[in-house]
Amino acid sequence: MADEKNILDIETVDLDLKTDELVIIDQTLLPNKTEIIRLSKAEDIWEAINLLKVRGAPAIGVAAAISMYVLAVRINVDENASDEYEVFYKEFARLRDYIDSSRPTAVNLHWALNRMDKLVKSMEGEPVTKILDAMKQEALDIKAEDIWVCKQIGENGLSLVKPHDGILTHCNAGKLAVCKYGTATAPIYLGHERGYEFKVFADETRPLLQGARLTAYELQSAGVDVTLICDNMSGLVMRNGWVNAVFVGCDRVAANGDVANKIGTSMVAALAKRYNVPFYVCAPTSTIDMDTACGNDIKIEQRPSTEVTEMWYNEPMAPKGVKVYNPAFDITDNELITAIVTEYGIARAPYDVSLKQIMDKKTK
Amino acid sequence: MADEKNILDIETVDLDLKTDELVIIDQTLLPNKTEIIRLSKAEDIWEAINLLKVRGAPAIGVAAAISMYVLAVRINVDENASDEYEVFYKEFARLRDYIDSSRPTAVNLHWALNRMDKLVKSMEGEPVTKILDAMKQEALDIKAEDIWVCKQIGENGLSLVKPHDGILTHCNAGKLAVCKYGTATAPIYLGHERGYEFKVFADETRPLLQGARLTAYELQSAGVDVTLICDNMSGLVMRNGWVNAVFVGCDRVAANGDVANKIGTSMVAALAKRYNVPFYVCAPTSTIDMDTACGNDIKIEQRPSTEVTEMWYNEPMAPKGVKVYNPAFDITDNELITAIVTEYGIARAPYDVSLKQIMDKKTK
Repeated sequence: MADEKNILDIETVDLDLKTDELVIIDQTLLPNKTEIIRLSKAEDIWEAINLLKVRGAPAIGVAAAISMYVLAVRINVDENASDEYEVFYKEFARLRDYIDSSRPTAVNLHWALNRMDKLVKSMEGEPVTKILDAMKQEALDIKAEDIWVCKQIGENGLSLVKPHDGILTHCNAGKLAVCKYGTATAPIYLGHERGYEFKVFADETRPLLQGARLTAYELQSAGVDVTLICDNMSGLVMRNGWVNAVFVGCDRVAANGDVANKIGTSMVAALAKRYNVPFYVCAPTSTIDMDTACGNDIKIEQRPSTEVTEMWYNEPMAPKGVKVYNPAFDITDNELITAIVTEYGIARAPYDVSLKQIMDKKTK
Repeated sequence: MADEKNILDIETVDLDLKTDELVIIDQTLLPNKTEIIRLSKAEDIWEAINLLKVRGAPAIGVAAAISMYVLAVRINVDENASDEYEVFYKEFARLRDYIDSSRPTAVNLHWALNRMDKLVKSMEGEPVTKILDAMKQEALDIKAEDIWVCKQIGENGLSLVKPHDGILTHCNAGKLAVCKYGTATAPIYLGHERGYEFKVFADETRPLLQGARLTAYELQSAGVDVTLICDNMSGLVMRNGWVNAVFVGCDRVAANGDVANKIGTSMVAALAKRYNVPFYVCAPTSTIDMDTACGNDIKIEQRPSTEVTEMWYNEPMAPKGVKVYNPAFDITDNELITAIVTEYGIARAPYDVSLKQIMDKKTK
């Protein structure tokens, strides 16, 4: 199903209210093909998350929440049986664990599944039809909150830069990673709306090229001045004096401010430190994991070697049988991070204190 | 002409003594196809250097020297005319300037052409056939010296590491960049011959993938334990503690020790500094340019955007018309370099002094 609409007018993740299906853009086909896919089977959803058809920590969270509703609607229960809830919950829990196994590093996946679980548990014994209604509302709420969160991160991030600044970003923490504005791109989009005329540099982000295929694409579609570079060029771009700030997204923030994000992020951070460029992590509080003490406690997902040696290419680009190390994420040490920008404010070192303050604001 | 021989048994750059042709491996087709091409026209040679069919600073130097002989043999002169030398030299100089324009950053191209020029000038007035014989010998000498230089660099580099070390390298400064042993790979090959069992990490080196296509290929062919990574992974590999030394080649060394090498080199150097990994530049003295004061005086070659957005791919990997910045090289500041390893010894900071000492040894 090709779609000729501007990518910015299409929902990244959505629930079809008529058919109870999860609706996503297949991001592995961008920018050459805009294909909308509709999912309602657990295996298909697991695969869509695992293969990065839907990707970006917040988008995965929203997709997971919607998925649990989509899958729950299809659980067979006898509404007159006395163990209706138990039968429903047992299957719900199985599906929750299955979806949770699709990607290990992004905390939002787990976070969204937990939130749905909490809701279902809080309604123990109530009729399943009523629980399903509540689940639908919860999933839509998570999506709406996500949009609000991005907007707030954009406002907070925008306070850190000025018109005509050069901004570098890595991977895609844009509209396609979230629902609107994105996280790392939120200050860019808001600034663009307000005439800031940023010069943006997008790292292509090997091996999956999210920077080239997604970030350059969505920023260009929005009319932002964007220049694509290879990952190994960001040092030179900073040395040239072209970058005033780096904004990146994140997949998980540990309690001490260490950050797990797309592989290469820690390199950009180390280079930013060297060239005195402020390095900002845009983090919805849903990605802050106060139960993880530090970055070394975060499990790093290892992905197939063929992503590096064969994917996208006309023919293999490495010798047959060569060993490959292909971690999806790396850990950026807190000392390299100038500030963590959340929807509840901007955290600075010492992060063990400032992140706690942010999380306290959230629960108030 | 497919060739089934091991890549290590094929000459990277050679002169066919029977046909007076330049013979090279087309490196743009590796590792999938080993095609040997034979060149004798100026336009074809220019294109082969410009499109990186032959590449690597030392290999370009050898190719340029052989090329000048190959082209000179084909200059039409009347051996009975009194202005035979003038006619010959005028055409020689035109061809020299033309070949010199094929790539701007590598100093070896210019160095080899100058050396041939000096020779031809020193024989002013002598019969062209005699000059041609001398040119042939000079080109073969340059190649033989190149092999000796690599071996010496290997010995000097090997003194800086120990058995079982982890070694990271960027781009290809291997056998395919030079004639034997390579420069950055010379300590690896020599160590391999002596049972050092290094663990080597090869950056893939976007956009042209010399690390994946060439370095991983030639090291694997030699039986070295090599792991391929994307350029944005070297920081994590160092953070993991897997790297004891970085060896890279170079295209030009300025008098103050700043180094121009493949784009991304300066990033690896900055990360090595951060993670306390020694960073060694393997530099034949032919790449040391005492007439260039510092890195900022080195012209950086800009290459076509399609190398980033389209080359190698099944379909374009970035939105149509996106701006691209595609510099072929970057400058590594001397303060990031632990040592510069040459055939005449190892230079350490302050480089303005140590490089001068090395160059003095050379002219003795």
